[in-house]
Amino acid sequence: MISDMENSVSFPELIRKKRDGERFTPEEIRAFVVAVKNKTIQESQIGAMLMAIWQKGMVTEETMALTREMMLSGEVMTWPKEWTGIVVDKHSTGGVGDKVSLPLAPALAACGCKVPMISGRGLAHTGGTLDKLESIPGFNVNQPVKQVELILEDVGCCIVGQTDNLVPADKVLYALRDATATVNSLPLITGSIISKKGAESLSALVLDVKYGKASLYKDIGGARELAQSLVKVGNSLGIRTGAALSRMDNPIGCHVGNSLEVVESLECLKGRGPSDLQGLVTSLGGYLLWMAGKAETMDRGKQEISRVLNNGEALRKFEAMMKAQGVSSEDARSLCSTDSDYFSVLRRAPSQMELQAQAEGTVLEVNGMILAEVLHKLGAGRTKAGEDINHSVGAELLVTVGEQVQRGVPWVRIHYEKPDFNVRLQDYLQGALVVGTTDHEHMHSIPLVSEFILPM
Amino acid sequence: MISDMENSVSFPELIRKKRDGERFTPEEIRAFVVAVKNKTIQESQIGAMLMAIWQKGMVTEETMALTREMMLSGEVMTWPKEWTGIVVDKHSTGGVGDKVSLPLAPALAACGCKVPMISGRGLAHTGGTLDKLESIPGFNVNQPVKQVELILEDVGCCIVGQTDNLVPADKVLYALRDATATVNSLPLITGSIISKKGAESLSALVLDVKYGKASLYKDIGGARELAQSLVKVGNSLGIRTGAALSRMDNPIGCHVGNSLEVVESLECLKGRGPSDLQGLVTSLGGYLLWMAGKAETMDRGKQEISRVLNNGEALRKFEAMMKAQGVSSEDARSLCSTDSDYFSVLRRAPSQMELQAQAEGTVLEVNGMILAEVLHKLGAGRTKAGEDINHSVGAELLVTVGEQVQRGVPWVRIHYEKPDFNVRLQDYLQGALVVGTTDHEHMHSIPLVSEFILPM
Repeated sequence: MISDMENSVSFPELIRKKRDGERFTPEEIRAFVVAVKNKTIQESQIGAMLMAIWQKGMVTEETMALTREMMLSGEVMTWPKEWTGIVVDKHSTGGVGDKVSLPLAPALAACGCKVPMISGRGLAHTGGTLDKLESIPGFNVNQPVKQVELILEDVGCCIVGQTDNLVPADKVLYALRDATATVNSLPLITGSIISKKGAESLSALVLDVKYGKASLYKDIGGARELAQSLVKVGNSLGIRTGAALSRMDNPIGCHVGNSLEVVESLECLKGRGPSDLQGLVTSLGGYLLWMAGKAETMDRGKQEISRVLNNGEALRKFEAMMKAQGVSSEDARSLCSTDSDYFSVLRRAPSQMELQAQAEGTVLEVNGMILAEVLHKLGAGRTKAGEDINHSVGAELLVTVGEQVQRGVPWVRIHYEKPDFNVRLQDYLQGALVVGTTDHEHMHSIPLVSEFILPM
Repeated sequence: MISDMENSVSFPELIRKKRDGERFTPEEIRAFVVAVKNKTIQESQIGAMLMAIWQKGMVTEETMALTREMMLSGEVMTWPKEWTGIVVDKHSTGGVGDKVSLPLAPALAACGCKVPMISGRGLAHTGGTLDKLESIPGFNVNQPVKQVELILEDVGCCIVGQTDNLVPADKVLYALRDATATVNSLPLITGSIISKKGAESLSALVLDVKYGKASLYKDIGGARELAQSLVKVGNSLGIRTGAALSRMDNPIGCHVGNSLEVVESLECLKGRGPSDLQGLVTSLGGYLLWMAGKAETMDRGKQEISRVLNNGEALRKFEAMMKAQGVSSEDARSLCSTDSDYFSVLRRAPSQMELQAQAEGTVLEVNGMILAEVLHKLGAGRTKAGEDINHSVGAELLVTVGEQVQRGVPWVRIHYEKPDFNVRLQDYLQGALVVGTTDHEHMHSIPLVSEFILPM
């Protein structure tokens, strides 16, 4: 080739390289990410590149460069010097009924950490952390960076949405990955998750990577591979990063749906949450406290989290956070009172219906995917970004895995409004309850978190 | 899944299928092509789909369905009943100096065929068939379908551009394949070429598939694979389709560049063309006459083509075609006269420069890619669709492969204008002439067409 033909990066040539399984240089990755951010690359080229990356993957060095360049595509937060070492966050790959963020952020704040938790909204299923919080009247998830710092100064934690300036390249790629069937690619997932955490300038980060029936990864092997990638790349950005692999077969806790999950989170903050949720919050929180140097061992960290959940300190942080993010003092106080009538503040769906177990035996499983799909049909989640959702739609599970049930006993209560919870949906949902015979002692003995990936 | 979620085609799901190497149903392929045509699928999704097809390929049945649906995305021409069996065309995968269409179309018309040749413009290199013809003042390649039929009625052949209505899905895909590094995919190449020929409602089609240094396929194996795919799919649409595999190392003929190639084509039509060009025209034409039933054997067909090239009948068809497509009678007659001063009609570049051979020996090779690249830099080709090109820029090769040359003897004459043919380009072009020692008798004995793929 005549050399001056190569002065600028050629996107077709860049796509060809990955198409043929070659490695990118850091400069090539920068050129791609900058072009994505500045919209100087065609969308068709981004689509082709995403598919080529899906097919051929990236080596760790490429994923590190991708993550770093994505992070640098926008604003990177800075914190006061005296916070060094204590700015922490958690990220979960998501699951049905996963409301861990709501009790965990204030618990960590109660332990002296600063938690600038940037969360997302859900597609499909039943809404993300932001959707759950927005079922509380007045709660404002849109906080400018300056305000985040003030809230962290005063309260210690906040849960907010991504601002426009934060990792703009990820906004583009994330939307296109969904459209182009390239979501589950190790380097793309890693880049998306860690770039956002990098832009938060964290000291420590724990990742909750799910596996199981109601998760992206059906077996632990895939989840472990992702966790290792996340941990490696997180640490390469200077964040002390560890991961927990946790099972996701049944919903977490007993409440699914936005406002119902707020209720259950508040119960957890009052020391009365379901044991699986409580266990997950203390495990992830304990791990973080240990990584941040706030606890000598992981177990000491867990005890510390349990303590602030049980003594009301975490609850007071949650109350303060709600007020700092726009909830009226009266509503915040009411929700946090010991004998709160939650639905005097939160909206309750006008209709409830219970389904009865159709057989007797031990509850072997409550299929989270089926439950989520039905709630999605009832309006608890969205199909396209920007759609309205009905915060009051949800489900209360009236049985837990391992429990004995009789035929005719109610096992789930559905909260709904429009569309109607019709017979077809009822029939479909009945398939979520799996009853049989087994050694239920054994089932209870498996903890939700089955493995920790330590910082490297 | 709840069944009514699946009423319409989901493009992410369609992309996922091919991503994972699954086969499409004809209905899925139709949905994709219709969406491409109607622009109801995002460009990022087309990009991802093209890359998935590049990576995973298609089985013959899928490629047939793709080709058929692309063809049906626009207008399909119809011809008078009495033309049944005699509507023919040629398609070449293209090469440096490949001007075969210009003498072949009128030669076939002189043999009683109807040739509605729809050609393209070149990207990179030195312009396509339409660009070559447009170096003739007045030649209008934009002819509505109705006009094409009138010209075929009167003259028997025309060479025109693709109308907007013809295979609109290909227009979209073709542009995006270039941008997304998915050009050389067997099903995509097949779909693009054969859908357009299908829309011409041909009786017979010959494909000139190139292999060699100056071609997409460096070895004959890849070219054979493409030829077999083209032949299979062409015949599945009811077109009697055959292919020739021809070597493409050195430029075809001695002239490269738009107006210079018109000159050499006219020489060929006057029975004075270079032997490689003459050989290729008679081989491809003879094959077509045999497939169309106009000759009993391929050799008889070749003799027939030679006859009309040598007796002036093909030349008179070319003259009539020029007039029918807008060239003045005076210019057409002047170009077709035995002792034509071509540059009294065609524009000649203001500057010419000859390069001297830097060593003595046998000419082993004239590298067509290097020559094309230099001419492209001098303005003979375009980098983006729609750019202007300089029709007068080109090269005359003054030596042929197998010939003995002395050091200092001129081997190429470059016609140029702006930019200047500077020392750097001169040095680069010198690399195109490869001189050494070999048995040149042997080199001459290899015919350009090395294999025929017969209709199946």
